[in-house]
Amino acid sequence: QVDTDPGEHSGSLRDAVAREILDHPFGNPTFTGRSWPLADTRLLAPILPSKVIAVGRNYVDHARELGNEVPAEPLIFLKPSTSVIGPNVAIARPASSDQVDFEGELAVVIGRPCRDVLAENAASVILGYTVANDVTARDQQRADVQFTRAKSYDTFCPLGPWIVTDLDPSDLAVTTQVDGETRQEGRTADMVFPVGEIIEYVSAIMTLLPGDVILTGTPAGVGPLLAGQSVSVTVEGIGTLTNPVIDRP
Amino acid sequence: QVDTDPGEHSGSLRDAVAREILDHPFGNPTFTGRSWPLADTRLLAPILPSKVIAVGRNYVDHARELGNEVPAEPLIFLKPSTSVIGPNVAIARPASSDQVDFEGELAVVIGRPCRDVLAENAASVILGYTVANDVTARDQQRADVQFTRAKSYDTFCPLGPWIVTDLDPSDLAVTTQVDGETRQEGRTADMVFPVGEIIEYVSAIMTLLPGDVILTGTPAGVGPLLAGQSVSVTVEGIGTLTNPVIDRP
Repeated sequence: QVDTDPGEHSGSLRDAVAREILDHPFGNPTFTGRSWPLADTRLLAPILPSKVIAVGRNYVDHARELGNEVPAEPLIFLKPSTSVIGPNVAIARPASSDQVDFEGELAVVIGRPCRDVLAENAASVILGYTVANDVTARDQQRADVQFTRAKSYDTFCPLGPWIVTDLDPSDLAVTTQVDGETRQEGRTADMVFPVGEIIEYVSAIMTLLPGDVILTGTPAGVGPLLAGQSVSVTVEGIGTLTNPVIDRP
Repeated sequence: QVDTDPGEHSGSLRDAVAREILDHPFGNPTFTGRSWPLADTRLLAPILPSKVIAVGRNYVDHARELGNEVPAEPLIFLKPSTSVIGPNVAIARPASSDQVDFEGELAVVIGRPCRDVLAENAASVILGYTVANDVTARDQQRADVQFTRAKSYDTFCPLGPWIVTDLDPSDLAVTTQVDGETRQEGRTADMVFPVGEIIEYVSAIMTLLPGDVILTGTPAGVGPLLAGQSVSVTVEGIGTLTNPVIDRP
């Protein structure tokens, strides 16, 4: 999704040019013929999901750093669509929390309505991949036990910068930097449940719709964000999602 | 929302007549002039929410019957929009659960985009009220600790039969019957956190959008549903939401 003067558009990015897509990016997209140099656009969140599903404790080292067991099945939770923001939009720390943490993650974008998808068929329901930051009010997560409040604040789900449709997700570097200093360095090969198994598990519970987003968990190294800092999550083969941090006005 | 032959329509119900509304039911609706006798329509879920927020342990007797403390703040969780069904659609028990419970509840439907709403102003952001059944795979809720899987299966959020826009929610009977036998009998006056306080709490976390639904918690008496049974939740001043129960095919 890109913002130009005037208007917002869905587009396909190639060679730093955004080519406008008619209607929506699912299936075989229709191109309108209009295009803009990427440098003349502002990138928006690449998708407005009907739901965001996330997997907790999906890297052994991260589960241990928070003192948790590695679960026997994927541990899922939901983030509201109102928490989604795009690249370069500020993450707003609420006054009610003393510790707002970054969690860099690979995100899967669903391409078609589906249910009961087997792991080996997961690729057929995936539109592509993007980068996510599963921002979490850690103190509230500990206090509530339920993850919902801690992970549902407006701005707590940065997504972007775009969706890469041709990517093997099985062994990609996931890196998070705060003000240029590396804080998380993981590889998707270390996921407890890889992408196919996550799709099988989630789609056995709920129907997945085009545009739904699944966050696949964060590697070790999570930590707090302060107003004035900038956090960047990079997934190899996709790109870098950068967001400044402010205190919620 | 009603289904007629042909098509689905938003409508206003009065004197057992459904009057068609143009576009959407928010703000001052525009009537098209078309109408149908209610008896000639099939009622659908009254709203397709962008998110469903629910409050756990909001009646003291229910918190105690499951062995839980009454929380000091509202305990919130999310259900996916794909779990919503309308009246008379079957609740499907997944093979993965041995105990699928009913939970009859008053549901609040949001009428306009809002954030940081004070309890005393809550009425200004509410479109109206409907009836909900927060269906829960109790065994999975206990096993996972996180509520998400247990409450997110397709068909686990019956809503309906309609939205009542002129209602005082402060002291209404909430009754659940299974095959005509009364199983839950509560009053909204016994909520730990009444509707206004819930709206204040939730809207301080996340922006609420028109059509978003908030389930306000269930009174004591929850219990399991079996295939072949019929479950009816009645909220005084609104109506009765009835759904048959099947095993998921």
